[in-house]
Amino acid sequence: MPAASNNTPGNTANDASPRSVAQDFATVFALLKPQMTRLDAFLREQMTGFEPEIRPMAEYCIDTSGKRIRPALVFLGGWTGDAEDAPQELIRAAAVVELVHLATLVHDDIMDGAELRRNRRTAAREYGAEAAVLLGDALLAHAVHIAAQFPTTEVCAEVSNATRRVCAGEIIQTMRRGTLEITLEDYQRIIDLKTAELFRVSCYLGGRLAGHPLPYCLAAAEFGRRLGVAYQIYDDLADFFGDEKRIGKTLGTDLASGKITLPLIELFKRLSSDADRAALTDEILKRAAPRPDLRIQQMNTLGVFEAVSDAIHAELRAAEAVLAPHATLPPAPLLLRLRGVLHDQVMTLKKDS
Amino acid sequence: MPAASNNTPGNTANDASPRSVAQDFATVFALLKPQMTRLDAFLREQMTGFEPEIRPMAEYCIDTSGKRIRPALVFLGGWTGDAEDAPQELIRAAAVVELVHLATLVHDDIMDGAELRRNRRTAAREYGAEAAVLLGDALLAHAVHIAAQFPTTEVCAEVSNATRRVCAGEIIQTMRRGTLEITLEDYQRIIDLKTAELFRVSCYLGGRLAGHPLPYCLAAAEFGRRLGVAYQIYDDLADFFGDEKRIGKTLGTDLASGKITLPLIELFKRLSSDADRAALTDEILKRAAPRPDLRIQQMNTLGVFEAVSDAIHAELRAAEAVLAPHATLPPAPLLLRLRGVLHDQVMTLKKDS
Repeated sequence: MPAASNNTPGNTANDASPRSVAQDFATVFALLKPQMTRLDAFLREQMTGFEPEIRPMAEYCIDTSGKRIRPALVFLGGWTGDAEDAPQELIRAAAVVELVHLATLVHDDIMDGAELRRNRRTAAREYGAEAAVLLGDALLAHAVHIAAQFPTTEVCAEVSNATRRVCAGEIIQTMRRGTLEITLEDYQRIIDLKTAELFRVSCYLGGRLAGHPLPYCLAAAEFGRRLGVAYQIYDDLADFFGDEKRIGKTLGTDLASGKITLPLIELFKRLSSDADRAALTDEILKRAAPRPDLRIQQMNTLGVFEAVSDAIHAELRAAEAVLAPHATLPPAPLLLRLRGVLHDQVMTLKKDS
Repeated sequence: MPAASNNTPGNTANDASPRSVAQDFATVFALLKPQMTRLDAFLREQMTGFEPEIRPMAEYCIDTSGKRIRPALVFLGGWTGDAEDAPQELIRAAAVVELVHLATLVHDDIMDGAELRRNRRTAAREYGAEAAVLLGDALLAHAVHIAAQFPTTEVCAEVSNATRRVCAGEIIQTMRRGTLEITLEDYQRIIDLKTAELFRVSCYLGGRLAGHPLPYCLAAAEFGRRLGVAYQIYDDLADFFGDEKRIGKTLGTDLASGKITLPLIELFKRLSSDADRAALTDEILKRAAPRPDLRIQQMNTLGVFEAVSDAIHAELRAAEAVLAPHATLPPAPLLLRLRGVLHDQVMTLKKDS
């Protein structure tokens, strides 16, 4: 994690736009609507390739898909300025990354024993854990099936590597759950693997498939990686500081499941007495009932929110900096606005907290 | 399933070899030893591509890999007569199909709650179900990673299709478990998807990558598919008629888990009274304790062993017939010997029963 500074990200040299981040959000997603509609149609059409018995299960997963951030990164990374006439390659690549993401969600929900995702029963709850394991596999295989229809093996290679790294990140996180053997470096590595990797590949493939120059594509990849890191830290912060209704889950679930994230690492560092640290250790190791309210109160008192949001903003600034040499290419200003959306979300948490 | 006849498979027109099947077994596997050694070295080397935390888990799975039938099919399907100098493409394709197979085993063992596989603890038991779900995903992704290193997308396309179909077969089987809604046609479709598909792809890719003519490759694919169907029916028959020590598992596990296979379908057809059929139904639906000893005895009395082994032999004959036009190509006689090995195994079951 780069050292955090107190600069307001919206005021850095490369972002002189006078728009508010709320406007940015609306603008960016309105721009992508034609491509998202084509993606929906493409995904539905793909479902006809599944055996009749598992088609409704696959369709059910696609219905619960959520925000489609990774497809948005493909579309923005490969932006050419002509929304209506975006190349079909981008739609296909967006479907690939979204299917990989959905497959990992189906498997995650089995492991977490989750009942609901976005207010619908998870696939594991709806069809049973056994079928859900295989359904995730089939979604993953279908992602590769689409990837294999490109003229070269590049999409297959990028996506298989990313998938392997996402799984490695999840495994390492699972293995470390309920132990104190997790350092800041471990945390950074886990989120780099489990979240940032697919963000990275989405931006990279968007750029490549739209025919943008390779130096930009590599910069877009690094932008995506940084944005993914920032996004995951935000998600971990929202687990303690979010509005329960808005984020749609109970606060403090990471603490309750023994998952050590940046807010907990920063809190631990700031607790001054051995007794306080021992008490938090007991909660993480499940030797004592978790006390999320106390921990959130301590995080507020001890400046944890600021430390963690500084870390997010540092990543967002690094993401911005890497695009600076490519500012004249059509995707750069749009990717920067997306970065602004995440910045906005962190500010919203602050208001909630 | 083609109608079974009483011909002894060893005596058909296309197999005039005077060798015994036991000799065939030894000959075929001795021939493949150099390639299997190279495959082992290649797989071990691949493991270094995994993150350090999950490398031992991946290596553990490879240790438990078993018979390596699918790699054997790649090597035999792509046989050129020069064992020592087999192209590296065959080794890589063999690694791909083996990793896909291992990934499905890791996931199957989670779902079956299996403790042991080949006398070692399953990955699910050794590392927990959560890690095993992700480990299976990582193995699958690594298979695609190797497949993406071929110059064209053909290996990726074949393997992803096969994987999706294998998963579909497993899902359909899982959904039908513990119900009576399974006909002979359903059974055939399930085993065609879950087992025969990967056999088919193995033979096909072997032929393609060795540069054999396309008509032979397509025939080899169909040979593989038929052999896979025969192999699965054999496996299902062995669940009732095997030697427990030799096959390394308890007899009657399919009945106990409510899995309807060909021996049960054939038994059901032969039970003459409504009361007998109702009693078997209760066992399948888990409304009554399973009585494997009684069911095996009835299968013996009512000719189920013969009917099922006839079905296997019919598939083996069909497999043989499809290779007839390509008898002069180097792989053909070896593939036919492998078919002989399976025939031998069915005969061994007969002796045990």
